[in-house]
Amino acid sequence: MGSLANESFNIELQQLDASTDTARNQRTQWLLTSPNPPSLFPILSWGRNYKGTKFKHDVMAGLTLASLCIPQSIGYANLAKLDPQYGLYTSVVPPLIYAVMGSSREIAIGPVAVVSLLISAQVSKIIDPAVDHIAYRNLVFTATFFTGAFQAVFGLFRLGFLVDFLSHAAIVGFMGGAAIVIGLQQLKGLLGINHFTTKTDVVSVLEAVYKSLHNEPWFPLNFVLGCSFLIFILMTRFIGKRNKKLFWLPAIAPLLSVVLSTLIVYLTKADQHGVKIVKHFKGGINPSSLHQLQFNSPHIGEIAKIGLICAIVALTEAIAVGRSFASMKGYHLDGNKEMVAMGCMNLVGSLTSCYTATGSFSRTAVNFSAGCETVVSNIVMAITVLISLELLTKLLYYTPLAILASIIISALPGLIDISEAFHIWKVDKTDFIICIAAFLGVLFGSVEIGLIIAVGISFGKIILGTIRPSVELQGRLPGTDTFCDITQFPVATETQGILIIRVNNASLCFANANFIRGRILSTVTSRSEEQSKGKFRILVLDMSSVMSIDTSGIVALEELHRELVSQGIQLAIANPRWKVINKLKVAKFVDELGKGWIFLSVGDAVDACLNTKMGDLSTINC
Amino acid sequence: MGSLANESFNIELQQLDASTDTARNQRTQWLLTSPNPPSLFPILSWGRNYKGTKFKHDVMAGLTLASLCIPQSIGYANLAKLDPQYGLYTSVVPPLIYAVMGSSREIAIGPVAVVSLLISAQVSKIIDPAVDHIAYRNLVFTATFFTGAFQAVFGLFRLGFLVDFLSHAAIVGFMGGAAIVIGLQQLKGLLGINHFTTKTDVVSVLEAVYKSLHNEPWFPLNFVLGCSFLIFILMTRFIGKRNKKLFWLPAIAPLLSVVLSTLIVYLTKADQHGVKIVKHFKGGINPSSLHQLQFNSPHIGEIAKIGLICAIVALTEAIAVGRSFASMKGYHLDGNKEMVAMGCMNLVGSLTSCYTATGSFSRTAVNFSAGCETVVSNIVMAITVLISLELLTKLLYYTPLAILASIIISALPGLIDISEAFHIWKVDKTDFIICIAAFLGVLFGSVEIGLIIAVGISFGKIILGTIRPSVELQGRLPGTDTFCDITQFPVATETQGILIIRVNNASLCFANANFIRGRILSTVTSRSEEQSKGKFRILVLDMSSVMSIDTSGIVALEELHRELVSQGIQLAIANPRWKVINKLKVAKFVDELGKGWIFLSVGDAVDACLNTKMGDLSTINC
Repeated sequence: MGSLANESFNIELQQLDASTDTARNQRTQWLLTSPNPPSLFPILSWGRNYKGTKFKHDVMAGLTLASLCIPQSIGYANLAKLDPQYGLYTSVVPPLIYAVMGSSREIAIGPVAVVSLLISAQVSKIIDPAVDHIAYRNLVFTATFFTGAFQAVFGLFRLGFLVDFLSHAAIVGFMGGAAIVIGLQQLKGLLGINHFTTKTDVVSVLEAVYKSLHNEPWFPLNFVLGCSFLIFILMTRFIGKRNKKLFWLPAIAPLLSVVLSTLIVYLTKADQHGVKIVKHFKGGINPSSLHQLQFNSPHIGEIAKIGLICAIVALTEAIAVGRSFASMKGYHLDGNKEMVAMGCMNLVGSLTSCYTATGSFSRTAVNFSAGCETVVSNIVMAITVLISLELLTKLLYYTPLAILASIIISALPGLIDISEAFHIWKVDKTDFIICIAAFLGVLFGSVEIGLIIAVGISFGKIILGTIRPSVELQGRLPGTDTFCDITQFPVATETQGILIIRVNNASLCFANANFIRGRILSTVTSRSEEQSKGKFRILVLDMSSVMSIDTSGIVALEELHRELVSQGIQLAIANPRWKVINKLKVAKFVDELGKGWIFLSVGDAVDACLNTKMGDLSTINC
Repeated sequence: MGSLANESFNIELQQLDASTDTARNQRTQWLLTSPNPPSLFPILSWGRNYKGTKFKHDVMAGLTLASLCIPQSIGYANLAKLDPQYGLYTSVVPPLIYAVMGSSREIAIGPVAVVSLLISAQVSKIIDPAVDHIAYRNLVFTATFFTGAFQAVFGLFRLGFLVDFLSHAAIVGFMGGAAIVIGLQQLKGLLGINHFTTKTDVVSVLEAVYKSLHNEPWFPLNFVLGCSFLIFILMTRFIGKRNKKLFWLPAIAPLLSVVLSTLIVYLTKADQHGVKIVKHFKGGINPSSLHQLQFNSPHIGEIAKIGLICAIVALTEAIAVGRSFASMKGYHLDGNKEMVAMGCMNLVGSLTSCYTATGSFSRTAVNFSAGCETVVSNIVMAITVLISLELLTKLLYYTPLAILASIIISALPGLIDISEAFHIWKVDKTDFIICIAAFLGVLFGSVEIGLIIAVGISFGKIILGTIRPSVELQGRLPGTDTFCDITQFPVATETQGILIIRVNNASLCFANANFIRGRILSTVTSRSEEQSKGKFRILVLDMSSVMSIDTSGIVALEELHRELVSQGIQLAIANPRWKVINKLKVAKFVDELGKGWIFLSVGDAVDACLNTKMGDLSTINC
């Protein structure tokens, strides 16, 4: 068995540098080329086949979306500590840009809760909006510019993997924590508090609430109004879930609440009895904000950092949303292209008085339920919002702030995914720790701390896996040529006189070489003592998993070889990969070991040792 | 083939949680237990068999060692910006402690150049020794205390792998850079400069030298004296290398230089002509420094950090030295035990006026050449140094500083390993970059920056390997049941209708799951287009290298399965490891895929697909 194979392997060993390169290059092309590089403007390809029936569905979905989007945008602008119109601006330009460049069909673009919180929590640290709200707003635009620039660069340089730095578990924990923090921030509006903290952690917020309630006069009307409409919105959602045909009811409930509560306040003059209202509200089309970008600010470094964090968090949310709906409808989403689209929409947004926009969880679900067919629903939504900005802003003068708070709160349960957290707990305990760490980090530290902890633990786990890889004893499955881990398959039997050890890591490098060497030697020692009847003569090292080796790894192999020789044991290497064998050749380890001790597979190594060389091994012992 | 194996695999699948745990625990014991846990005081075991002949050899080696150690210790104390006697103190207590606790037979303990530089460069940043040399010295002792504490803790908690954070390549570059920096520092003594910089980078040092030579009067006698004796020392080393019997000549050359130059200065009264001399030199036994440790210092955090860096660098040097000589003599060195010994010797050292000691490259080589048999040579050396401290210190009053500089310079070529750097260049280009980065970092930044860059690049490489793992197409070697990478073995042939893809990483996790999923899908697409004759029906995913999976990895597998199903391709998984299959079961992925699509090996998967299931596959397409 294996003669042809070993022949080819020897050719490989001898002519490795020259002969196989061509074949390798040809074949790796399959892995590298992607079919039909997609164009930058997907609208050009799907636009041609766009039909009237699709348009009807898209208009219906777009109008439903707008009815949810208008109150949410105002609320999120409030959360971002900006005037209400900036939330609406953000629902006009970015969706239009995305419609031209993006490839997701269901995603609903606009301001979202988590990014609003993130940007306000971070920029507030530099300038307090209560002190200078114009400077604050300018820094928000600048941060949005950086967000867009980072996103576009990630996409253009195909750095899509950066988004993967936030693992699934970290996102679940982070979103849950952020939802609670956002909910707590709404206590300000719901209770009508004047003096609030700029910190976001639970302790500071509850302290601020407690102090306010004790020191300031408070007006329970805010609370009554907010809670009543919150109950109303939650009830419509319950009805919508029970009866799928009434999906539009929860979608328009927030707008309905705004209209009703505004009317109530206007008619009862409740604003004179302590109910806080939106008041001033500038309408009209998005003004330019080109000259408000602050590239000469002394805080430019910090602003760029905020932009980077927002870019990653916004992309993570958008790509998670886009991917889950794309896989539901069975089409593929190119992460890098999406990033370029998101980057462009935020870049243009930052020049037109928008803050960071991304794909919203809740509105995308509404868009999907309302039967959208293409991104045209986003265009319809943007136009509707634009019309409202032109015509309806004056009507929102008397809208109570408590209603905005209750609209934000009503969107939060979708961010807290307890069942997923339980699923993570069942499947992977380390992932659960990451999830909880992110959750607690956001809750008791800050959004940034939560993210750093989650990413830190995730990468710590990867590095730990590399530093302490496993080494396993292998045995032959009876009647086959298959060699398996004897721990996993107790039926596998060891061959007398031969110890087969497999290195279970893709890289034999400085971080684990000494550990692996020590583990192998201690295994040899303990097994030799156990096996009193006959000593091991040969150690077969299965290197099929080892894809790369560095100089520390080679030194460790050399030391291992020397130490084994001093114990009268011969080292044989099975299935080294081409990169590894190439380096071992250059480092002269192959000469030191002898070419005859390198085999194509564990089976070949064992057969060769049993058949021909067992007799000669006594010479090695001398 | 494989029926028995597959049976066992099914048992595994069904009863995994209960039945195999016992067997696994039994077998993993081999991997975990180490034979005869060694005692804390190795001297108790080897001391019993210690004989007179060995003692004779050890005394000879110890005396040779002392003759080299005395001038080096004074020089290194000067490098560490301490009075000369502190170098000698450090050659008394730590070697004695190590002799009782350590297990290396050849290592020579005492102050070394790199650690002296490291500690003076770092502590000088906190307190300038020129301003307050007592406070500086106290901080050095405190840093040494932390060094010892960290080393002992590393050993006790078996954190030996921390030393591996400095890869072989990083050490080569770091040592080379440090040697040049140390050499440049000696320009102060060699040129007799008064005002020197506390920085260590090349640019600052050369600037300081240039300024001094222009602004101060300088005395060429220092330079003449230093260079003459440097040439003398280098010549004796050349002779020693040519004639192995004269190994003692380079070893005693430094002491000889000290004696001769001191005599010359004393007789010619050269100190009155600008030759700088040691002057005050306190003799006697090590005084206690218990009350000089500064645990209430406001800089305690920085001091602890310096202690940590020194601990790692000192251990790296000592363990590299110890291991290379141990493997030459064919015995094994327990890294964790060595750390405890090093930790204790520095802890006791910090209480007895010593600064950080470790194993010296140059003196260990001399000890080895001089024929040492056990650590008794260290004891002999320590006693000789102690006697010199009692009797000879007054004689060293007139020793010129230039001689100390030339003794330090003469020891540096051993630290610069150009041939090893060339070897690294040949074997591994990334390692060479790490090497050069550490070298340049030390040279133009600082010792700390060099270390951080080297460790950063090393870990960046590990993380990059995990983020972008390779995925390979596999084919069957003709006439065998072995499946190989078709890039490495062009003779391997693919089976029609079946695509075999292997994931080449030990962990399928958040950092690479989406990348692997995308790579597999793009391979499927491009191969489908190429293979016009017949579409693939089955994708066999070889998971034998994947040792762990997290929730992101499972989600990626689920998405992959769904996307393949939508293309009419069935996913089959070959050789999942027990941890992986366990998690896939808990996450219900096994139910989703169907137990029939999980196989023990690629061969089984292909056989099963070819024999029985190929006919039924049309049903899957529907």
